[in-house]
Amino acid sequence: MRLATYLFICVDLSLALFEAPALFPLPFVATALAEVICLAAFSARLVHFAKVTAQMVFWKDTKNICIMVTIVVTLIDLIVYGSLEAFHVHSVRWTRALRPVFLINFPESRQIRRAFRSLRNTLPDILYVFLLFLFSVLMFSLMALKLFGDRGLKTAEGAPYFTNILEIAFELYVLVTTANNPDVMMPAYNFNWWYSLYFITYIIINTYIFMSVFLAVVYNNYRKHLKNEIRKLAYLKRHKMIEAFDILKVKVGTEFVVKEATWKQLAKAVAPDISSSHLELLLRISDEGQQGFVDKTNFLRLADLLNIQVVTVNLRRHPLEAWVPRVYQCSLSLLVQRVVRHRAFVWAYDVIILINAIFIALDEKHPFISYAEWLFLALYIVEILLKLYTYEPRAYFGRKQFWNWFDTLIIIAALVATVANATVQSARKYNSRQILDIVLILRILRLLRVIISIERFRVIVTTLINIGPTMLTFGGLVFVVYYAFAVIGMEMFHGKIQFFDPNSTSPDALVCGNPALKGSAFARDRYCKNNFNDLASSFVVLMELTVVNQWHVLAGGFALVTHQAAKLYFILFHIVVVILIVNIFIAFILEAFFVAYSLGKSEIETAIEKKIQELGVGIQEEDVEDWKLIRNTGARDSAFSGSDGDHRIKASEGLYFRIASKKYRTVDALLQRMFESEIASSDEGPSLEEILNFSPSDIYPKNPNFENSA
Amino acid sequence: MRLATYLFICVDLSLALFEAPALFPLPFVATALAEVICLAAFSARLVHFAKVTAQMVFWKDTKNICIMVTIVVTLIDLIVYGSLEAFHVHSVRWTRALRPVFLINFPESRQIRRAFRSLRNTLPDILYVFLLFLFSVLMFSLMALKLFGDRGLKTAEGAPYFTNILEIAFELYVLVTTANNPDVMMPAYNFNWWYSLYFITYIIINTYIFMSVFLAVVYNNYRKHLKNEIRKLAYLKRHKMIEAFDILKVKVGTEFVVKEATWKQLAKAVAPDISSSHLELLLRISDEGQQGFVDKTNFLRLADLLNIQVVTVNLRRHPLEAWVPRVYQCSLSLLVQRVVRHRAFVWAYDVIILINAIFIALDEKHPFISYAEWLFLALYIVEILLKLYTYEPRAYFGRKQFWNWFDTLIIIAALVATVANATVQSARKYNSRQILDIVLILRILRLLRVIISIERFRVIVTTLINIGPTMLTFGGLVFVVYYAFAVIGMEMFHGKIQFFDPNSTSPDALVCGNPALKGSAFARDRYCKNNFNDLASSFVVLMELTVVNQWHVLAGGFALVTHQAAKLYFILFHIVVVILIVNIFIAFILEAFFVAYSLGKSEIETAIEKKIQELGVGIQEEDVEDWKLIRNTGARDSAFSGSDGDHRIKASEGLYFRIASKKYRTVDALLQRMFESEIASSDEGPSLEEILNFSPSDIYPKNPNFENSA
Repeated sequence: MRLATYLFICVDLSLALFEAPALFPLPFVATALAEVICLAAFSARLVHFAKVTAQMVFWKDTKNICIMVTIVVTLIDLIVYGSLEAFHVHSVRWTRALRPVFLINFPESRQIRRAFRSLRNTLPDILYVFLLFLFSVLMFSLMALKLFGDRGLKTAEGAPYFTNILEIAFELYVLVTTANNPDVMMPAYNFNWWYSLYFITYIIINTYIFMSVFLAVVYNNYRKHLKNEIRKLAYLKRHKMIEAFDILKVKVGTEFVVKEATWKQLAKAVAPDISSSHLELLLRISDEGQQGFVDKTNFLRLADLLNIQVVTVNLRRHPLEAWVPRVYQCSLSLLVQRVVRHRAFVWAYDVIILINAIFIALDEKHPFISYAEWLFLALYIVEILLKLYTYEPRAYFGRKQFWNWFDTLIIIAALVATVANATVQSARKYNSRQILDIVLILRILRLLRVIISIERFRVIVTTLINIGPTMLTFGGLVFVVYYAFAVIGMEMFHGKIQFFDPNSTSPDALVCGNPALKGSAFARDRYCKNNFNDLASSFVVLMELTVVNQWHVLAGGFALVTHQAAKLYFILFHIVVVILIVNIFIAFILEAFFVAYSLGKSEIETAIEKKIQELGVGIQEEDVEDWKLIRNTGARDSAFSGSDGDHRIKASEGLYFRIASKKYRTVDALLQRMFESEIASSDEGPSLEEILNFSPSDIYPKNPNFENSA
Repeated sequence: MRLATYLFICVDLSLALFEAPALFPLPFVATALAEVICLAAFSARLVHFAKVTAQMVFWKDTKNICIMVTIVVTLIDLIVYGSLEAFHVHSVRWTRALRPVFLINFPESRQIRRAFRSLRNTLPDILYVFLLFLFSVLMFSLMALKLFGDRGLKTAEGAPYFTNILEIAFELYVLVTTANNPDVMMPAYNFNWWYSLYFITYIIINTYIFMSVFLAVVYNNYRKHLKNEIRKLAYLKRHKMIEAFDILKVKVGTEFVVKEATWKQLAKAVAPDISSSHLELLLRISDEGQQGFVDKTNFLRLADLLNIQVVTVNLRRHPLEAWVPRVYQCSLSLLVQRVVRHRAFVWAYDVIILINAIFIALDEKHPFISYAEWLFLALYIVEILLKLYTYEPRAYFGRKQFWNWFDTLIIIAALVATVANATVQSARKYNSRQILDIVLILRILRLLRVIISIERFRVIVTTLINIGPTMLTFGGLVFVVYYAFAVIGMEMFHGKIQFFDPNSTSPDALVCGNPALKGSAFARDRYCKNNFNDLASSFVVLMELTVVNQWHVLAGGFALVTHQAAKLYFILFHIVVVILIVNIFIAFILEAFFVAYSLGKSEIETAIEKKIQELGVGIQEEDVEDWKLIRNTGARDSAFSGSDGDHRIKASEGLYFRIASKKYRTVDALLQRMFESEIASSDEGPSLEEILNFSPSDIYPKNPNFENSA
């Protein structure tokens, strides 16, 4: 069901690739048919959804209304466009820009919707700062008009300088993005040194201070709403747990408790893939006194207990040790294993990688160097084989061993590609450029491995990898906005600018096929390929606009081939993407790093860790990281069986537990934990109604301390 | 003493204006003499300082060592340079770059030193991120060399594209600053659409993610160290207060207390300019039971009490009311006063200002419009006179009434300048350009007044004005760094690039007087005035480099006229100023806004406010803001005398108190209060030794909650 919805959304969105202006042109009938099918599917999905939810809830949900309106509007647009097309009247299919609505509003895309909500929440607060900022730009424009307008200054291109208030306002808006600094200042500065002070003041106020204030407002809002959402979730959880307790409770002695069997059943039902030894561990923490039941306080902790990732490390013997114990344990084999485990082995390979880097930088056409590449590849393969010989393969390829996977995949891919390239080369006496490119990229990615040898680097990289999934949410958000802007851009600008082959000698090539561009910065900088002639090109142009630099040249070029008002499209894009989305992205990264920097262990985690240590089944993370598991097995096993009194956790070949270190946690989980530590355990929380109506502004007045401000 | 030190520092720093390459050339003997005098003054200051501090403390202080070393090194440099100059051998006066050391290290410039410390503290943490970032740039450079190096692509200028690894690394470093986007991508993108993915990946990783991580690291450090410093201060204060209590205490009954007279004496000694009615108020809060003494808990609050700004509002009758009561109270006069106090009066003037803005934007050469300007000026003057008639003048020009002052000064200055301009014009029949410029700027600044009418704008602007003083500290920091870089830049690049008058027809003008620049982007963009030929020009160039855009063109130009290695100077400047200082500045603005957004009232403030209300001498801030004081006097006076039982606060004509609202507080004061609310009042704090050795990393493990992370 979910898959089908996504499939239809993908089809619907990808239609932009086939509609004029198309990357792969298809007749209108085909794309219209595909769109109608998609719309039918969405309607069906909606009808089904309406059936399974209560009437009231369904109609109150703006998501559903949104989808319905979009479907109807799209259909009308399709019919109008189709009938006009039949009479060869060209019109604009503007509802194509609405297609991302489906992506956002289906219940499956909660993450993107959340990012959107965060965007929407920021709007009211940022509006006032933005108005103030606009006011400041306009005041400076007026001042510039008066100061420079009637001096007859000329720009470097010989155009009149600062004579029209609208042009000045645009130039000064561009200066805020720094894209035309220092060119915009040069004529005035050449005329008189003192005029530079005007521009310096402008830059300090508008570029530095206002842009920082935008970031501050966006960040403040982001955090406020994030906290509110998480507070809501935390209280909701507490509320549900109390409800569950009230249903399951039985009276033992004077107090209500939940029986051990019920508790286990519940845990199994909630987390079906939990291992029984893990469950046993949690039960021992919840039922401290081994009385056969769990009291209310401990019961309420169930969800938190289940949320804490306990890594079950299964220490197994190396398969070779099991199959050919004598060979694996012989002195030569032990020596090899010791060598591989030694730090110097890692260092040696780091040196090899660096030498490899130098070889890559050298000219590869020399036969000696291309042979060296085979040697390096062989060395890397030997390394992996040695590691697999020394460490237990299933531990080596564990789920969390990102770098081992990365390593092996890169090497295997490089091996395959190099062999393929060599085959093609010897068979047809030429290098396949595509394969060679892949080989080269793989070869260079291999160098990344040096990073993991250095502890400080690893921390940063791991944090970045952890926030990766949430960054993808931003990717979704950016995609939605890009898509809408790309469709509008294609309708406005397609075909206006043509790209000619770089070797073309046509005089049109110099003006991108449009005489209006003659002498413009757009043509001079050879930006002809930056056009809106298909979806892929549009996305690249929008990416360039996001990076901001030279966006005024792009905006100026497209304004020349259409109308000066087209600049509004580019200004709007700047406001939405750069001022809002990029700032939210920065806020997100800042928050993620702050959380990663500052968070310690929670109480519950400490309790679990203590229990694990008590039971003697603990293992340090570093042991796992350094793949020293096997070496320690002997020593640990004995210690383990020593304390292995009455508990039922099986330790067949060596089953160890460890709290997943915080670097494997998501930002959301960390934030949730932060707020939960603030709710007292006896606090029953507000009523359900109140929880659902929490507003972000409630947070502040209650706690006038560090927590809000710092 | 302090003034003299600053004077000598100013003289010493300003020497760069007179030394070759000079803005105002002076012979070497003169500047050398001035420098020697300054150095002598600094030495004298240091000797004096050594006399008044303990030997051990003096020699342990790195500040003093720094100054001594700089004095000696400067003297040696001066002698060497002077003697070489005598033999006409030109050498480099590199110690000039060390001059800001004096500015930083004299005890008088605590603020700048603190900003510098914050910079230094950030270095270790940022180093690893920076190395990782460099590694990433190098890896991408290698990839670019392999992917694009041997395709024979050409840039828009026809130069070979991505063939040299060093050039690629520089181009990609520039791309991180976005300054050469999308130009650097165009050749590859023109060749094949897919290559844009390489650049998009690069930009996402290095420009967006790494730059945000830099900000996160800088911000995290900034906050950590700020909190540590403030925690230190808060504990030190507590420590000193306990010491003071132990000295002053006398035994009354079973507990030690401080007598009322002693307490008053102390408060008067600590805060000599406190009004006696304010002191009385504080005593009433400290001595709750009116027992004639202050106990320990209340005594420890003394410093906090004194720190809280209590605004004493002295409600006075309008002088006109005192002089000519009958005229002032007549119905016409009352009507005028009511009109002026009405909201519509403000709105009417807002409309006038907007019309004025339109008139300014129109062509002023038309006589009707220049007459209109006189009308507007008259209207503004009438407004001020009416307000002075209605509101009590001393309240209107109160210390905190920033906008009233602003308003009046702008109008008076505009009046003076307009009259001066008219006089010059009628006498000599021409407009003095300088006076006209000032008139125009003043006229436009007047428009700023619209902002204060809108509440939401006022909040933002007030926050910005409040953080103004601290921003000046950053100004000092930037000045110090700019000065050092400017001196080095002048030594390296002076005279290499010449500026010709824009109307010059000399062929040299097109290549800035240096044939090496022929065909370069530097010459094409007419950047000749961006040179290091004197201090003022150097500062402008450095400002342009700070804004980042086109910095690669500047760097490329200066590299062409000297050596490719000169680019290192520009890269170093980028790292120090853009990655470090600008990020600290952003962190500071973010923090200031967060504090302003989130802080409520402290306990002590609430206590004081309650007391003020109890005594019936409270006044709301809004009353003062709206200048409604006088109107309410009658009603309040009666209420006041009603509750005016036994307390001794005189209310002659109406003396009211009110806690200064948070918008008048500095960021430091807010932060300090935040931390203080965390120290329990019974907490005696750690020992003095411990306090002085607090390290920022101590903060985190103790409180694993919201406060650290959020």
